[in-house]
Amino acid sequence: MERVPVLKIGDILLVSIQIDMQDQTAVQLQEDLAERIVQTGCHGVIIDITALDIVDSFVGRMLATIASISKVLDAETVVVGMRPAVAITLVELGLSLNGIRTALNVERGIELLARSDDELEYDDEDIDSTEAEPVAKSP
Amino acid sequence: MERVPVLKIGDILLVSIQIDMQDQTAVQLQEDLAERIVQTGCHGVIIDITALDIVDSFVGRMLATIASISKVLDAETVVVGMRPAVAITLVELGLSLNGIRTALNVERGIELLARSDDELEYDDEDIDSTEAEPVAKSP
Repeated sequence: MERVPVLKIGDILLVSIQIDMQDQTAVQLQEDLAERIVQTGCHGVIIDITALDIVDSFVGRMLATIASISKVLDAETVVVGMRPAVAITLVELGLSLNGIRTALNVERGIELLARSDDELEYDDEDIDSTEAEPVAKSP
Repeated sequence: MERVPVLKIGDILLVSIQIDMQDQTAVQLQEDLAERIVQTGCHGVIIDITALDIVDSFVGRMLATIASISKVLDAETVVVGMRPAVAITLVELGLSLNGIRTALNVERGIELLARSDDELEYDDEDIDSTEAEPVAKSP
């Protein structure tokens, strides 16, 4: 069985889909990716679909599932490299890839993930300062 | 025809080979890669072969050709993700991938390329200082 490799680059896991996804390949990829997220503690997943000529409802569902699994494991998913023709077909098919973030290419995907990380850290600081307040007020 | 995508990540072009390479796909990949090197000015090429179960003489030759083309275009090539079984088969076949640098995974490949870049810069400095010497001695 063919297997889609999951490549670790810094804090990001990169998956480049080039083969026709079948049920079995899709399930295997989801398992591999979930395992790698837990094993590496990465917070970002980039799925590159440059090589795909068509994204049908099966692939669309697979991308959504991967995004959901990653989210549960505290990792954000960005789909990159969508061709113009694929975007047109997707909309014509009525598939809008709800809940999936996209970026033009891998580099922009990395930037997007880095920005989300920053926002997250900012949120954390906010929470810290709110928690610190009552302590400061106590005698 | 299937096409292997070339992904740009910083100063590196990443190619993950997942499909069976045929004559036509290999030639297309070489053309695409050469074009992207010129277009982006990247100095490093990483070829990931995690997904390959076997590297025969055809793929071995293709890797060597890609490395040679990249070198001419001032880019260094590192092949990463070779499976243990592939390494064993390669040696048994008498193919030692001469002139091709390898690394265990993408991250180590990136480190290797970064180190070569440093060495290159160091070399440049050396040349500069040697060139500067006669000037300093001149009256």
